[in-house]
Amino acid sequence: MRCEVIAIGTELLLGQITDTNSSWMGQQLALAGVDCLYQTKVGDNPERIVECIRHSLSRCDAVITCGGLGPTQDDITREAIAEVMGVKLVRYPEIGDRIKKMFESRGRVMPAINLRQADVPEGATTIPQQPGTAPGLICPVGEKVIYAVPGVPNEMQTMLVGTILPDLKRRTGFKGIIKSRVLKTWGHSESGLAELLGERIKTLDSTGSATLAFQASGIEGIKVRITVKTDDEASAVMILDDEESVLRRILGKYVFAVDDETMESVVISGLRNNGLSLAVTEISSGGLVSSRLSAIETSGKVFLGGIVPVSGRIRESLLGVPGDVIGSERAAAAMANAARETFGADVGIATTSFFDLPNTGQLPPGTTFLGLSTADGTDVDQVHLPGDRERIRQYSVISLLNFLRLKLLV
Amino acid sequence: MRCEVIAIGTELLLGQITDTNSSWMGQQLALAGVDCLYQTKVGDNPERIVECIRHSLSRCDAVITCGGLGPTQDDITREAIAEVMGVKLVRYPEIGDRIKKMFESRGRVMPAINLRQADVPEGATTIPQQPGTAPGLICPVGEKVIYAVPGVPNEMQTMLVGTILPDLKRRTGFKGIIKSRVLKTWGHSESGLAELLGERIKTLDSTGSATLAFQASGIEGIKVRITVKTDDEASAVMILDDEESVLRRILGKYVFAVDDETMESVVISGLRNNGLSLAVTEISSGGLVSSRLSAIETSGKVFLGGIVPVSGRIRESLLGVPGDVIGSERAAAAMANAARETFGADVGIATTSFFDLPNTGQLPPGTTFLGLSTADGTDVDQVHLPGDRERIRQYSVISLLNFLRLKLLV
Repeated sequence: MRCEVIAIGTELLLGQITDTNSSWMGQQLALAGVDCLYQTKVGDNPERIVECIRHSLSRCDAVITCGGLGPTQDDITREAIAEVMGVKLVRYPEIGDRIKKMFESRGRVMPAINLRQADVPEGATTIPQQPGTAPGLICPVGEKVIYAVPGVPNEMQTMLVGTILPDLKRRTGFKGIIKSRVLKTWGHSESGLAELLGERIKTLDSTGSATLAFQASGIEGIKVRITVKTDDEASAVMILDDEESVLRRILGKYVFAVDDETMESVVISGLRNNGLSLAVTEISSGGLVSSRLSAIETSGKVFLGGIVPVSGRIRESLLGVPGDVIGSERAAAAMANAARETFGADVGIATTSFFDLPNTGQLPPGTTFLGLSTADGTDVDQVHLPGDRERIRQYSVISLLNFLRLKLLV
Repeated sequence: MRCEVIAIGTELLLGQITDTNSSWMGQQLALAGVDCLYQTKVGDNPERIVECIRHSLSRCDAVITCGGLGPTQDDITREAIAEVMGVKLVRYPEIGDRIKKMFESRGRVMPAINLRQADVPEGATTIPQQPGTAPGLICPVGEKVIYAVPGVPNEMQTMLVGTILPDLKRRTGFKGIIKSRVLKTWGHSESGLAELLGERIKTLDSTGSATLAFQASGIEGIKVRITVKTDDEASAVMILDDEESVLRRILGKYVFAVDDETMESVVISGLRNNGLSLAVTEISSGGLVSSRLSAIETSGKVFLGGIVPVSGRIRESLLGVPGDVIGSERAAAAMANAARETFGADVGIATTSFFDLPNTGQLPPGTTFLGLSTADGTDVDQVHLPGDRERIRQYSVISLLNFLRLKLLV
């Protein structure tokens, strides 16, 4: 089963936005055992979209078009597919009603132009999942098929996972399974991990039971992906479990999470399991720690809250920390204590980086101080984070949470 | 002059890395007046690379291949181009010597396999700029041309800017310039904007002085892009200035920013110009407002800081707001007041969404309350935000900042 992806939109060719949708679809197709041999970008031009779809259909079994399903005049994917199918567009009132209701639920009136989104090529069906106003389409062309999904990432993803991948798997007759597991690591370089795992990779190359791949993921650390191709779910899970154990023995505390887990979800779970509550004072990360913790912990029982004391005055009045004490071990410890006391939390953490200060030349930019406060006392660490200001901010989040993880939860 | 980009590498199709090179090249080609109508990704497979290049040459004047010029066996772009040209590869000793010297200058011995990089299709020339070990190639095919550049971004960029763009401009005879400007809007749907601008688009279609395009950008709102193609920089800027004025008259307060400006940069600038300081209490956005404001405002003079009061206890003790008063107009007003007073700021803002509460059935999820407090009193607004919890969080940030912008800064 060969499936091509055609990303539609002049803005993609002009580089105004980067086509990350195709990359994501490529990942998912590979995991579903579907070959994706080409991916194409084409602009909002009817002849060229038609030519692209025809050319793709000539060399593969399925085409996914992404984009051009919006309501405006430059959204012409529906028309192009109808032309390839040799059929007319039919307007479905029930789709129009559904779109109208979406607008009404947000207290807005649907512009008449949105009714274009209720046009469907004759013989096509709509994809049941419809998170936005654009319905996705399944358009048979003889034995082959064109799927059309919107370019809005979460709408595309919902439709691909909910309908297209299962439909492709059914068509391909592929009974086996390709399954991956990702171990997320923090604190070691990619080449360092490759050295640690060198022997294991050699062994796997000869046994063929699984493959390992590294993926540097910036502020999310470095991922080690285990992939197995086997007959059924149960044996895939068994092989992945075994391999995960082997890798964890080798990599130890560097592994902080698996698959959908994140540093923040791991920290929150760990605190909850230990009956501990947490609060944060963050200068360098400016609210990023709070936003990530509050995204997953909503009960108000583990993560009690955070303070972003940008002005020196608030550090004095609210936290009782001298306003000029920042970017130092003393500041990190004092602010972690202040977070714990202000919020009445079991654990307080804090981060403050050297970029906040006029550079005195004593410390390189990116020098970041991490503070941890519990009833047993305070602990501080100093790390050197690379990149520009925004990158240092981002790195300081995961560095701080990892510091907490290693000190309290491992 | 039409030029296509072919990105070569199986890792691109598998989504292991995202193809940002093509997007960058698309930008540069557009600015050089070269039409890039298609971009394709293909894996490390000789037949398919050859097929792709042939197909591109059949419909355009120039092809840029990117990637597959490395030393290892899966780097086969040189061979594929030679096959398309119908010629043999010739090994140039002087290129080999140059690569050898690069290794030596880093104190390393060149592996023999790197000599493959000294292979050039007969009749092709090398690109003078060579930042890495892979030489770029200029390969004539009749009146048309194939350029081959490495996939390493800085090597590709150096060659494109240094040789390929000037060569394409010379071939195309285009002396002019293409320039864009983006107006960022918030508060109206894409179809609504299209209706508002319908007449103007018709006028531009007939005069041809500029084109307009819409781009829905989720939590960043909807962008309206003006593009002009003209003789020189000065006249391009003049047309863009005029068109921006026309669009601003039509779109009014919906336009919040231009080009690189963001909602937060506009809000910070506006406050600074008015000599006002700001603090925030955020429940629904959980730190996102603070993180975005603190990313650009680092002096501590305009944005004084923020509080994320997740636990009810902290809302009572720190803010003096009853812990059970959330997800309401009263809560938004009280928390905006509390932010202003706690931080000693001129302006306090607050956001709290209905997803934080057990759903009593009275209000739909996504109902979000925005609060604004100044010395003159408080103001609240209620908006309905779509999507899942994370999306509502994100939308609440820009909704809150836009509320502040409209109330104080327009």
